[in-house]
Amino acid sequence: MSRLTKRARIHKVRLNSDESAEQQLTVTTVQREDQLAAEEPLEMRIGDDPFSVTMRTPGDDFDLVAGFLVSEGVIADPAELISLRFCAGEDENGQQTFNVVQAQLRPDVRVPDLHRHVYTTSSCGICGTASIEAVRKDSRFATLEQSVSIPLPILADLPERLKRAQRLFAKTGGVHAAGLFDLDGELLCLREDVGRHNAVDKVIGWALRQGSLPLTSTVLQVSGRASFELVQKAAMAGIPLLAAVSAPSSLAVQLAEEVGMGLVGFSRGNSLNIYAGAERIELAEG
Amino acid sequence: MSRLTKRARIHKVRLNSDESAEQQLTVTTVQREDQLAAEEPLEMRIGDDPFSVTMRTPGDDFDLVAGFLVSEGVIADPAELISLRFCAGEDENGQQTFNVVQAQLRPDVRVPDLHRHVYTTSSCGICGTASIEAVRKDSRFATLEQSVSIPLPILADLPERLKRAQRLFAKTGGVHAAGLFDLDGELLCLREDVGRHNAVDKVIGWALRQGSLPLTSTVLQVSGRASFELVQKAAMAGIPLLAAVSAPSSLAVQLAEEVGMGLVGFSRGNSLNIYAGAERIELAEG
Repeated sequence: MSRLTKRARIHKVRLNSDESAEQQLTVTTVQREDQLAAEEPLEMRIGDDPFSVTMRTPGDDFDLVAGFLVSEGVIADPAELISLRFCAGEDENGQQTFNVVQAQLRPDVRVPDLHRHVYTTSSCGICGTASIEAVRKDSRFATLEQSVSIPLPILADLPERLKRAQRLFAKTGGVHAAGLFDLDGELLCLREDVGRHNAVDKVIGWALRQGSLPLTSTVLQVSGRASFELVQKAAMAGIPLLAAVSAPSSLAVQLAEEVGMGLVGFSRGNSLNIYAGAERIELAEG
Repeated sequence: MSRLTKRARIHKVRLNSDESAEQQLTVTTVQREDQLAAEEPLEMRIGDDPFSVTMRTPGDDFDLVAGFLVSEGVIADPAELISLRFCAGEDENGQQTFNVVQAQLRPDVRVPDLHRHVYTTSSCGICGTASIEAVRKDSRFATLEQSVSIPLPILADLPERLKRAQRLFAKTGGVHAAGLFDLDGELLCLREDVGRHNAVDKVIGWALRQGSLPLTSTVLQVSGRASFELVQKAAMAGIPLLAAVSAPSSLAVQLAEEVGMGLVGFSRGNSLNIYAGAERIELAEG
């Protein structure tokens, strides 16, 4: 049984206005079964201590936790992650919920203050610091490989390749996707989730567990917008290029410039915008 | 000076493939100025204690903080909120950052455990509870007004009305919108933000500060998808109907059913899906 989607009985309503007869509106309603993208809370623990709760689409939960720990700067090497397991736990029907994952880290890994990632700013306050500094985390892969670039035609084709590979979206129309590609446009890993930050964390966690970090010669294509958070996650994993189908935010562009990441938005097949790191895109034809 | 958008110099790239000459790809690149949706961190404090940090589009920050406090179940009455102010603070250029807001609550308001809203589940664990229970908050407007319903043609027109009113989206293409409408389809309040939860909190905070809670006879139209979080926020404000342009998640539908909310998705003008509370939509024409 897949936990990626859930069935629901819905009313599909169609409004047909008859142009010839003014004010004439015909309404047709059918009841039918529909598939929804599943959303459930996941609690992440380091040892016995709760670390974070996220609303996510179940599936690839170990990748999600591993990737979140990379994004938060806790680990950067698979050897630092000793084990991941689901905690025992049942819902009211006696079913295991699979909604709590426990990570065991190598003893020398500095376990962060459990509130640090939420209250990034509680010690110093944002006041008096540049706002971007207050929310930044430092990557162990600090310098993104400078020489990495991608031919424009390959880059422009990634949204289409991503979409073709998106199985969950085809069913539900309700999830974000993150696809990691190599510089020839080959898909390395695709993850879908109701939360786009989760989709990216799942990709990064997959890479950590594969021993593929830092992701030096890759490009991350996402289905939606590019927020600060996504640029930050990509930077933490050493990804030199982030491309989004929709718009980036101001802080996403600022951070991309700071870390030397290529940032592309409104990537729509026959056009795209380059917001940062233009040298990473090979514009000259063939 | 507006802080809603920021200017950036971008490369606009267009790929033109010449159908007649195989493999012939022409690339045109222009550099021009573009407008980005601003994204900055906002730290919320209750008294001197940091409560939460959110990445948001600056503007309507007092509404955002007030609405977040309602959504989190801290306050439900404007009299409980004594004051809101920006903390003093400067960035490296000596400019006030306006990125920290302090709320003073009436002394009898039970200030929640500062970690409660993040670690909702840390005391009991999600294990052993129904997952939805673990993340639910109880609204003081527990029962949504049962008799409230809206004529279908008005409901179906709301996405178009929302879009026409979205000024920031027109400029940047990069923000979510939440519009509160009355049952005649009149727009009461519109807010735009890079985070859709922020857009909804800003609307709810506006209503609290107006003394309009609970929002009994309204419908909330949002530009994107309907997550659990948005249904929860709407329920906390007493909103009986939530309509989204895109898909709802499984948990959004489950919660809407539980609290008796009408939930509509894929609302596209001439068609829409009803996922919960179908009795709130008047399907019969005329």
